[in-house]
Amino acid sequence: MQTLPSTQNAALAAQLEFAINDKTKPPGSLGRLEQLALQIGLIQQTTTPELVAPAMIIFAGDHGVVAEGVSAFPQDVTWQMVENFLAGGAAINVFARQNGIALHIADTGVNHDFGVRPALWNTKVAPGTRNFAKVAAMSAQQCETAIQNGRALIADISGNVIGFGEMGIGNTTSAAAIMHKLTGIPVADCVGAGTGLSAQGISHKQSVIEAAVALHAHVQDPLDVLAHFGGFEIATMVGAMLEAAQRRMVLLIDGFIVSSALLVAARLQPTILDYCVFSHQSDESGHARMLAALQVQPVLKLDLRLGEGTGAALVYPMVQAAVNFLNQMATFSSAQVSEKSQ
Amino acid sequence: MQTLPSTQNAALAAQLEFAINDKTKPPGSLGRLEQLALQIGLIQQTTTPELVAPAMIIFAGDHGVVAEGVSAFPQDVTWQMVENFLAGGAAINVFARQNGIALHIADTGVNHDFGVRPALWNTKVAPGTRNFAKVAAMSAQQCETAIQNGRALIADISGNVIGFGEMGIGNTTSAAAIMHKLTGIPVADCVGAGTGLSAQGISHKQSVIEAAVALHAHVQDPLDVLAHFGGFEIATMVGAMLEAAQRRMVLLIDGFIVSSALLVAARLQPTILDYCVFSHQSDESGHARMLAALQVQPVLKLDLRLGEGTGAALVYPMVQAAVNFLNQMATFSSAQVSEKSQ
Repeated sequence: MQTLPSTQNAALAAQLEFAINDKTKPPGSLGRLEQLALQIGLIQQTTTPELVAPAMIIFAGDHGVVAEGVSAFPQDVTWQMVENFLAGGAAINVFARQNGIALHIADTGVNHDFGVRPALWNTKVAPGTRNFAKVAAMSAQQCETAIQNGRALIADISGNVIGFGEMGIGNTTSAAAIMHKLTGIPVADCVGAGTGLSAQGISHKQSVIEAAVALHAHVQDPLDVLAHFGGFEIATMVGAMLEAAQRRMVLLIDGFIVSSALLVAARLQPTILDYCVFSHQSDESGHARMLAALQVQPVLKLDLRLGEGTGAALVYPMVQAAVNFLNQMATFSSAQVSEKSQ
Repeated sequence: MQTLPSTQNAALAAQLEFAINDKTKPPGSLGRLEQLALQIGLIQQTTTPELVAPAMIIFAGDHGVVAEGVSAFPQDVTWQMVENFLAGGAAINVFARQNGIALHIADTGVNHDFGVRPALWNTKVAPGTRNFAKVAAMSAQQCETAIQNGRALIADISGNVIGFGEMGIGNTTSAAAIMHKLTGIPVADCVGAGTGLSAQGISHKQSVIEAAVALHAHVQDPLDVLAHFGGFEIATMVGAMLEAAQRRMVLLIDGFIVSSALLVAARLQPTILDYCVFSHQSDESGHARMLAALQVQPVLKLDLRLGEGTGAALVYPMVQAAVNFLNQMATFSSAQVSEKSQ
């Protein structure tokens, strides 16, 4: 695997910090936006970054583990929601439209025949993973195919900002298992309500994951973890994330499931974290711990737990604000404003 | 004073909750945005709210208390920043432009002669308040004039969303004093670094406020507190806020200083809180406690401490997202998506 380019550049970082501090505001007073401006300048290796043609891909896939009764919604909701995305009626359609983000939908492995649909990118590896409570969710070859599919999808994106979203009934179960395997955090602290399980449902989901983890106890390598516990949408995202960072894009990371894909990618290439904006802290209970394990700070905390990339779409105006203040604000000297006196 | 209209309407609230839950998403999964959608529906008394011609007013004023050395920046920065606003180079210009918010600037009491400037609303009560460490900051008559000025400014706003911003060197000192008087929170917990005081500077600022509070110990009535410790920008905001709520606008409340004006308004008319979106929790240390005293939750926490209305401008896309999902998302029945099964 090609090593990702570094964003580190001490001279440029100093130039960016000077530019940020020279704006007509008390130093540091734009808080998180100043950190974002620095980060995006380093990603693009310039003091005048630009956001071009922002895009979002929703990666959809089905999960064999739903046979264990781990979701509050039936599996058919995955393909029904894909139809909803195609028709423009889902939350992510609304937020992407609002914020000028081009929305793409990829079928990475939905258990449904959509027929020929030009607006739906067909990267289906299989009609759903196998049930990881019984066997590995996918073969090593399927996992590799999904990763390569993800890389290829990014090659079709012309802009330099890419949001990651997902749809897949059962995928918080997959994400929780990956999180446990790659961080060592106890399963109980990785599992949450997903689309809305009761306390009893969460307890059952935890038991299913614990049994599966015992069954596949030998699995340690990040790609093996991905193949054993992942979904096709998660594996495809891993490839897309690695490719997007390779191309020096800004990656907008959504919630729990997208972060689980990023966790795999970061275990393969830690440098990828420098390209990521962690858009929000989800209300899915494991997400805060996953972000802490990655040692990253989310920008928003809106108690979202919807997925689809909704948090990534909602954070985009903040990313724009960071770039815009850097490019558009006056400096103390240009505006003839007096500087701090104490 | 006219009593503000109530937003409470149990039948409409039930209709809004039904509409929000009928959207194609797990119930509650849009978190804070669902609360905003409900609130804005109630403000506008409709299940299909619309945001029309959002505007922001920056209220600028100077403070006599700067003579006590309570700010890291010289007083001239107030008028210099007003010029920066007029020239379009400040952070609030950038964020208002980005989010389609019309920006207005009101001179409520800046210690500078701007000459005739059509783009600057002239509501100057006096060229700065008096030093509240020695005497009341303004007379009761001046305070009343500022409030009426604020009401009149809102009459010139045609839209239904109004953001509040401010500029005034020394005004965190004024806001901290008001906060202490109206909440009873110790001065030490109301005082912060403002534009960037050192620990020693903060300690001095605290002493100045404590001495002033002792000097004006008899003052209890909210309007008296406003007159004794306020700034003209704060008093003008109080009037504008009351008028905006009277007209059933959505009020976007910015940071520490704007919240201190809202605190006064809320002591006069508690119903005003129902019209307010608390855009962010500022990094100014007293703000979190002030929001807690008001029993309200901020939407964003970006470690901003700039003022100008920057947080209020930045939250606007979240308010749009709330209204847009309510108006534009498909329902479970319209999209033929299966509902929760457990």
